[in-house]
Amino acid sequence: MKKPSRKAFITRRLTFSAAHRLHSAKLSPEENRRVFGKCNLPNGHGHNYTLEVTVAGPIDATTGMVFNLTDLKDVMTDVIEHDIDHKNLNMDVPAFKTLNPTAENIAAVLWDLLEKRLKPGLLNEVKLIETENNFVSYRG
Amino acid sequence: MKKPSRKAFITRRLTFSAAHRLHSAKLSPEENRRVFGKCNLPNGHGHNYTLEVTVAGPIDATTGMVFNLTDLKDVMTDVIEHDIDHKNLNMDVPAFKTLNPTAENIAAVLWDLLEKRLKPGLLNEVKLIETENNFVSYRG
Amino acid sequence: MKKPSRKAFITRRLTFSAAHRLHSAKLSPEENRRVFGKCNLPNGHGHNYTLEVTVAGPIDATTGMVFNLTDLKDVMTDVIEHDIDHKNLNMDVPAFKTLNPTAENIAAVLWDLLEKRLKPGLLNEVKLIETENNFVSYRG
Amino acid sequence: MKKPSRKAFITRRLTFSAAHRLHSAKLSPEENRRVFGKCNLPNGHGHNYTLEVTVAGPIDATTGMVFNLTDLKDVMTDVIEHDIDHKNLNMDVPAFKTLNPTAENIAAVLWDLLEKRLKPGLLNEVKLIETENNFVSYRG
Amino acid sequence: MKKPSRKAFITRRLTFSAAHRLHSAKLSPEENRRVFGKCNLPNGHGHNYTLEVTVAGPIDATTGMVFNLTDLKDVMTDVIEHDIDHKNLNMDVPAFKTLNPTAENIAAVLWDLLEKRLKPGLLNEVKLIETENNFVSYRG
Amino acid sequence: MKKPSRKAFITRRLTFSAAHRLHSAKLSPEENRRVFGKCNLPNGHGHNYTLEVTVAGPIDATTGMVFNLTDLKDVMTDVIEHDIDHKNLNMDVPAFKTLNPTAENIAAVLWDLLEKRLKPGLLNEVKLIETENNFVSYRG
Repeated sequence: MKKPSRKAFITRRLTFSAAHRLHSAKLSPEENRRVFGKCNLPNGHGHNYTLEVTVAGPIDATTGMVFNLTDLKDVMTDVIEHDIDHKNLNMDVPAFKTLNPTAENIAAVLWDLLEKRLKPGLLNEVKLIETENNFVSYRG
Repeated sequence: MKKPSRKAFITRRLTFSAAHRLHSAKLSPEENRRVFGKCNLPNGHGHNYTLEVTVAGPIDATTGMVFNLTDLKDVMTDVIEHDIDHKNLNMDVPAFKTLNPTAENIAAVLWDLLEKRLKPGLLNEVKLIETENNFVSYRG
Repeated sequence: MKKPSRKAFITRRLTFSAAHRLHSAKLSPEENRRVFGKCNLPNGHGHNYTLEVTVAGPIDATTGMVFNLTDLKDVMTDVIEHDIDHKNLNMDVPAFKTLNPTAENIAAVLWDLLEKRLKPGLLNEVKLIETENNFVSYRG
Repeated sequence: MKKPSRKAFITRRLTFSAAHRLHSAKLSPEENRRVFGKCNLPNGHGHNYTLEVTVAGPIDATTGMVFNLTDLKDVMTDVIEHDIDHKNLNMDVPAFKTLNPTAENIAAVLWDLLEKRLKPGLLNEVKLIETENNFVSYRG
Repeated sequence: MKKPSRKAFITRRLTFSAAHRLHSAKLSPEENRRVFGKCNLPNGHGHNYTLEVTVAGPIDATTGMVFNLTDLKDVMTDVIEHDIDHKNLNMDVPAFKTLNPTAENIAAVLWDLLEKRLKPGLLNEVKLIETENNFVSYRG
Repeated sequence: MKKPSRKAFITRRLTFSAAHRLHSAKLSPEENRRVFGKCNLPNGHGHNYTLEVTVAGPIDATTGMVFNLTDLKDVMTDVIEHDIDHKNLNMDVPAFKTLNPTAENIAAVLWDLLEKRLKPGLLNEVKLIETENNFVSYRG
């Protein structure tokens, strides 16, 4: 190939299941019902979340890889499996004790957790698919 | 067409989101943990459920339909929207106060609710897709 | 393997795009509007149809195949490509000059067209996916 | 979280069905047939279109949302449901009386219709999936 | 629920990647090329296979399950992971030393391997999706 | 429409099946096993690859198209069908005689092959989906 160092973007996908309830401590009960509708029902609901994490960088001339997808999978599994998968986000996950677990906030929290575990500058995008009709993308 | 009355199977798909916790009152806490694993965690988790309801019968010579899919959609929406969607199955849905909300039991409960609303013999199958890896089919 | 002749079901999938309008000559304009709703709008709408054709039979001991999927693909392409794909079903396809092109009737018409081209008893099911929420299955 | 105002991209997906015919008034009949092939057949064909609309902005500290997805859904439904869904784009939709309803032009027209209904700067991308093999993205 | 023992069908999905080459020792080189086309190219090609295994039986009144999906997943993983996943079916898998690894034969071989590991009568269907356009189902 | 020349991105999707083995001539056998794991098994495995090629440019005022998708399909088919589809990438494709056929390198090689066939500046992105969990994007 003609270029000595070619940049690529690689993505790993992982699914998890969690319960959540949209509720903001900064809003009154009435405002919470109006803003969040049935997502504010008191006992919560849940989703099969799909997480797509993208890292970007030059393709290594020896391995042909930007980053080993097995290592990326391990980092993602570490972050998700023990603390988030099959949990109630509002009740079981410290980050959401005070933060409303909207798709936007979940994506931003996952970005922070993943960024700490990866070489600086490697993380490019965290995409969270909440339902087949709703997605969020966070790029730092 | 050569045949006066041709039988066909028509399916309508609908998605909903709910929280649940697998837990059987007939098992000890230790047995519940062993049998249901992380699905038994105390505060529950959730899914985007996909429901596929199939009805079967002859194709009507006037309309060209087995059953009006708009009517089937309305029956399914009635059953799901008010009582199940965005609810916590264990806490909010009467049928699961005592019945463990496994995919099998949810499918069977939905069969009962739908069958009451449809002409006898019309309902053919209730398929519930709990995750991209787990499906259940109930055929009465 | 232990069994001399094992039966299997093989399916080939193909997509096509067509316009149609649901309208029954046996119903009044008012009834057509009531029964078919927006599917009865005068200038038609359209779909990306997905067709899944299943044939069934013993696995041939020499080839390891029930039927050559390349041959099945050719038969399906013949039936679909020249007469149905990118056509207006009501205006361009003879079978639907008098027959309402509901998913049920399209599936039954495709069954007839495919059955003539295949060895007797081979065709098992014609499944037509009209939208991600509506499917029809016809089994003869 | 460490950052006071974090930008995110949220997407809402919606499907609709429409008929269309590719035909340019600026080309001769022969050129139309050569350029558009079977998409130029006189009576039109159709698609199940999938529309993905992305809005971008800071995550609101009170609600945890960039924009209420229910409001985005309502705007999208307003634009699509009354004027485009189940219509013949060439015959029924004013924007396509003179404009060829290619996926590119449909995406650009939908951008214009949506942009008028949203706060300036909020709309980020309109993606239109015409078939499982053809997509268009328009970003203003 | 009214019925003491209700039968349901539960399915677990798993994906694996393998290389294969279609070639029958009972056919001449010319016949192999004619029957299998590019699937007979000498150095093989490969697929992401999706395996869907269905078991059927009564819903257990204590657990609410037909069979523990975690146990089904473990059996499937055992059968697939060590002997089939990321292998060359023709060269690495004993069953295909003499048997042509068509989708039909792979499904039948997996049925045999799975049936040995499950309670008699439990296994209901093995579905193998070879590409988005080709599927095989084997039911014993 | 208000703007004389509007830029859009159009994407064409195509699938192919190939075998490959991850192995770097610059690494020892032990390092190859450690870095590539089961992807380094000696006889290779395979995938159903999905290729999504995006071209970008102004929407032509006469045709309403950025680029004719039929022409893009033909270029993609030319590049893929004769040299890559149903091949063993390591053994049959010249570009991978010395280059490790990782998803990153396949995407970059396809970029080079496609770029030569398209007007300068038209090619925008080559996305290669190796499995439902692994994707790579290359943007030149």
